[in-house]
Amino acid sequence: MFVLGIDPGVSRCGYGCVERRAGRLFPVAGGVITTEPQVPLPERLAQLWSELVALVAELNPTVVAVERVFFQTNVRTAMSVGQASGLALAVAAGAGCEVVQYTANEVKQAVAGYGSADKRQVQQMVRILLDLPVVPEPPDAADALALAICHATVAPLLERIAASGAPA
Amino acid sequence: MFVLGIDPGVSRCGYGCVERRAGRLFPVAGGVITTEPQVPLPERLAQLWSELVALVAELNPTVVAVERVFFQTNVRTAMSVGQASGLALAVAAGAGCEVVQYTANEVKQAVAGYGSADKRQVQQMVRILLDLPVVPEPPDAADALALAICHATVAPLLERIAASGAPA
Repeated sequence: MFVLGIDPGVSRCGYGCVERRAGRLFPVAGGVITTEPQVPLPERLAQLWSELVALVAELNPTVVAVERVFFQTNVRTAMSVGQASGLALAVAAGAGCEVVQYTANEVKQAVAGYGSADKRQVQQMVRILLDLPVVPEPPDAADALALAICHATVAPLLERIAASGAPA
Repeated sequence: MFVLGIDPGVSRCGYGCVERRAGRLFPVAGGVITTEPQVPLPERLAQLWSELVALVAELNPTVVAVERVFFQTNVRTAMSVGQASGLALAVAAGAGCEVVQYTANEVKQAVAGYGSADKRQVQQMVRILLDLPVVPEPPDAADALALAICHATVAPLLERIAASGAPA
């Protein structure tokens, strides 16, 4: 199972893909899609759309995990993150992928064991869980890989719980 | 010049198209794209994307005017409006249209003469300016037509100001 994590943003949209095979996780791809601040927003969103479509076509993930965004204090950033998340969700669903969303805290909980872990700790856990020599760069890629790892570890657990007939 | 107005929303996305010809405005199309609340959000966004792409291809507008959204008290709605606006901006730019954004107050100012006009007054002005026997239905279509009228009336004014060399 390939899981593609997407950390939405217009300036920087992180992505990271992992494969779950025989109960182990393997890194497949990671990086960041950037758009230039001096380009008008509609064109930047159109570029982001095209790059996300190409990414999903190339990696062909079973599941796409998109960070669930909330409103922060900076409303300008929140709006563009919301716009980017809309594109990511639509591209993934349009490509026929299963689409899931996790909050940043859920990702931290799943990857680092507690919801208040800092970014650096999460990135170190990504390195360890994927058996990489160094933390994936740029940090956007590591954050997106954490999303993919979150789903790849949580989903089998939920399936086992559902199969056992116990309330999830 | 065809101007397509889009009032973004996931449940209801209004659209309205006007033509400006020989200094007069003519209604071309108006309606609402809806998605079902019981369908998962990613699929709804993918549907909205497809319908917006088809709409822009059919109407082939020169300019697309999208309502500029701000955060309201209801953060759940604000996020989905932000996601829908991201799709509308990306679809319009991706189709090669000029893309502009106006706030609700700018639309009221341009269409009804003052920024505090209520929805009903704006809808009546849409009816009068487009020489229609009744207010366009549903209200989402009238709101989107108001956006299109706003640009169709403001843009020539700005062009004349620019051509005169006076500061805009």
